[in-house]
Amino acid sequence: MLEELKKEVYEANMLLPEYNLVTFTWGNVSAIDREKNLVVIKPSGVEYEALSPEKMVVVDLDGNVVEGELNPSSDTATHCVLYRHFPNIKGIVHTHSPWAVSFAQAGIDIPAAGTTHADTFYGPVPVTRAMEKEEVVTEYEKQTGDVIVETFEKRHIDPDQVPAVLVNDHGPFTWGTSAHDAVHNAVVLEEVAKMTYHSLQLNPHQINMDQFLLDKHYLRKHGKNAYYGQKK
Amino acid sequence: MLEELKKEVYEANMLLPEYNLVTFTWGNVSAIDREKNLVVIKPSGVEYEALSPEKMVVVDLDGNVVEGELNPSSDTATHCVLYRHFPNIKGIVHTHSPWAVSFAQAGIDIPAAGTTHADTFYGPVPVTRAMEKEEVVTEYEKQTGDVIVETFEKRHIDPDQVPAVLVNDHGPFTWGTSAHDAVHNAVVLEEVAKMTYHSLQLNPHQINMDQFLLDKHYLRKHGKNAYYGQKK
Amino acid sequence: MLEELKKEVYEANMLLPEYNLVTFTWGNVSAIDREKNLVVIKPSGVEYEALSPEKMVVVDLDGNVVEGELNPSSDTATHCVLYRHFPNIKGIVHTHSPWAVSFAQAGIDIPAAGTTHADTFYGPVPVTRAMEKEEVVTEYEKQTGDVIVETFEKRHIDPDQVPAVLVNDHGPFTWGTSAHDAVHNAVVLEEVAKMTYHSLQLNPHQINMDQFLLDKHYLRKHGKNAYYGQKK
Amino acid sequence: MLEELKKEVYEANMLLPEYNLVTFTWGNVSAIDREKNLVVIKPSGVEYEALSPEKMVVVDLDGNVVEGELNPSSDTATHCVLYRHFPNIKGIVHTHSPWAVSFAQAGIDIPAAGTTHADTFYGPVPVTRAMEKEEVVTEYEKQTGDVIVETFEKRHIDPDQVPAVLVNDHGPFTWGTSAHDAVHNAVVLEEVAKMTYHSLQLNPHQINMDQFLLDKHYLRKHGKNAYYGQKK
Repeated sequence: MLEELKKEVYEANMLLPEYNLVTFTWGNVSAIDREKNLVVIKPSGVEYEALSPEKMVVVDLDGNVVEGELNPSSDTATHCVLYRHFPNIKGIVHTHSPWAVSFAQAGIDIPAAGTTHADTFYGPVPVTRAMEKEEVVTEYEKQTGDVIVETFEKRHIDPDQVPAVLVNDHGPFTWGTSAHDAVHNAVVLEEVAKMTYHSLQLNPHQINMDQFLLDKHYLRKHGKNAYYGQKK
Repeated sequence: MLEELKKEVYEANMLLPEYNLVTFTWGNVSAIDREKNLVVIKPSGVEYEALSPEKMVVVDLDGNVVEGELNPSSDTATHCVLYRHFPNIKGIVHTHSPWAVSFAQAGIDIPAAGTTHADTFYGPVPVTRAMEKEEVVTEYEKQTGDVIVETFEKRHIDPDQVPAVLVNDHGPFTWGTSAHDAVHNAVVLEEVAKMTYHSLQLNPHQINMDQFLLDKHYLRKHGKNAYYGQKK
Repeated sequence: MLEELKKEVYEANMLLPEYNLVTFTWGNVSAIDREKNLVVIKPSGVEYEALSPEKMVVVDLDGNVVEGELNPSSDTATHCVLYRHFPNIKGIVHTHSPWAVSFAQAGIDIPAAGTTHADTFYGPVPVTRAMEKEEVVTEYEKQTGDVIVETFEKRHIDPDQVPAVLVNDHGPFTWGTSAHDAVHNAVVLEEVAKMTYHSLQLNPHQINMDQFLLDKHYLRKHGKNAYYGQKK
Repeated sequence: MLEELKKEVYEANMLLPEYNLVTFTWGNVSAIDREKNLVVIKPSGVEYEALSPEKMVVVDLDGNVVEGELNPSSDTATHCVLYRHFPNIKGIVHTHSPWAVSFAQAGIDIPAAGTTHADTFYGPVPVTRAMEKEEVVTEYEKQTGDVIVETFEKRHIDPDQVPAVLVNDHGPFTWGTSAHDAVHNAVVLEEVAKMTYHSLQLNPHQINMDQFLLDKHYLRKHGKNAYYGQKK
């Protein structure tokens, strides 16, 4: 079942080492079939060179395995929460990419500091609050999803416009309109984290870009008046 | 038309990923035929592996497409302003190379801190002022060119001697006597930004080189008394 | 003798340049046969491309060569001390990997700052005290092992749960349940050192993760209730 | 003439891009035949891929070309001064390797901060004083050599034991018992500069290693009681 989607999820997973976003098995990509409400996700702890489309695991939105012989990613419950609460997203990526993790461990947002950021993220990439003990002890991976959703709701951030988050003391999740789009956003996030880290060292006090420049760059690439690329 | 120049611009564009100056499609190279006043430039948002010489777009100095089926780079208007105001340049490069962007986002010049800098740039690489809201909302890409020109005029910098600029909260443009020379300068800029970032962390207070050392290195490579290399 | 183990130690040594953990010959891997109390270790100062399984050196736990025509690693005595005092470990790695060395030279622990750390190291990776002159002058390599053991004993750290140390002003040693597991831990250590260095620059004051998050991540991968990966 | 030495110098030059020590043509290696007092050096400004043994230039110790059709490196006069004043060295390398340049531009020594440093450099790698205007304007490259020699003499540093220097606001020169040994030292210098930069950011106040640890590591690899490697 879902052979096309398994192939896409497999290929998107293989992009993570290609883009230097993962060490060992520290990352996973999923995608959802919104009509069937089924999620295809990487198996847990399997090395990338050992993956194949047929090893991808199919789960329902409660994380129950529907097809596949391997355990799904240990982060499956987090993916499911995001698919349930962010209705427009169709692919999710989790990595421990080092620059994004550096901000997550420091517990600070990645501020919108320049047009590279604005071309993909319409505002700061938020860091979640630290999780409480009860959230970590019980249903940790589901609660990780919940704290992400809480962050976007409390701060009135549209997850379609800022398709990334830093889980406090953990690392990034990104998402998008497909598994490949989510990988694209993971690559941009890492590049932006690297650049903005260095800008903060050079000038800790004046780093935020003007709102109108943020508007300009985000909207020339996204939305109905976009004119970047070959859209006609 | 302009088949030679298209080939050169194509090859210069392909050097950007080779020198690790771009992620995805975040960069473009153009060159000008000064006799015909026509500019050859990369199409907008096309991946490098999909480029070919015939996909390059020919525009006039107002940015109107003269030949080519694809949209030209969204930065075309910026290139055109620079070609109009800097009469000796024949090639332009724009990238989001990360070290140069780090300075652009911090809003500070790259100071002339050593001979690596002085061999190519005869003084600090300037950062533009932040653009005003009106400049961003209307004719943004043209205004980006205007603010670059303003920077060189107000600070009395010769664009032939400092063939690079950092657009505030955006990133670098470099130029040169050809598309390839502009790429060369983009590589040097990134390397110099990296080195000088680290020097500033080691010693924030004493980083500028002596003027006579700057003179010596710039002039032993450039101008009529140059003696570096195989010039006779 | 010990042909299997020599092959394993050879392969584990060859992983060091593959994972970019060594420059020139600056690293070595050993493994122990716990039944025979014999250690297989890389020869001293031999380039990786010149290594082969049969060039591995066999020593007893006092460091005496039992088989092999080459001198064993100059760090052999350190390895022997660790095998004698940490009874569950079966492989050891020493490198001068640059991020770990940066902390060792600064004389500070790598704090447990996030889940990447917690997945492998159940607490901070300790740095040893600086060695005394007498320890350096006499039996230096053996004393290096002693100061590592002292660090774990005095700070009540379980070497099976924190399989890594930074020797002050020197560099990292890691260990594990096999030569390959020790290499795995050396890779993780370097990645964690890099991430946490940057987090400390972003936020020097609030970097330590909560104990319950450390517990969760370490224990979901290790111990009898682990559920990460394909364990059933 | 000197065919063997030309081949060695050619091969040593080709190691510079292999070890990522140079961008474009920013580096050169020479070696000396001490019996004939002739120096073989890279031609000026020629790309590495275009080099061959026969393109190496032979000069005497005053820098006069004895054989070769190309101009010798613009740094030839500096090499000649070092060969004249440091009688035991037989090979010299100059690069703009970025971590070493970062210290040179900051105008500070690379302190001896750990055993990686001590294995090759018996003390801090010194930075020269800034050159005076007259030194830069007249016979600049020869004066560069003179200020290096002055640094070692005034600070009582033995160039055989610290085979590297940082020229202020410029970059590193290293040397050794052959062209290849000088390249080895250039690689170590860059690695040590990188590590110690990061240690200084982590702990600016306590970075110098103990003298007895410096002695131990330098002397276990160098001198008549060395026991590292396969020396018997």
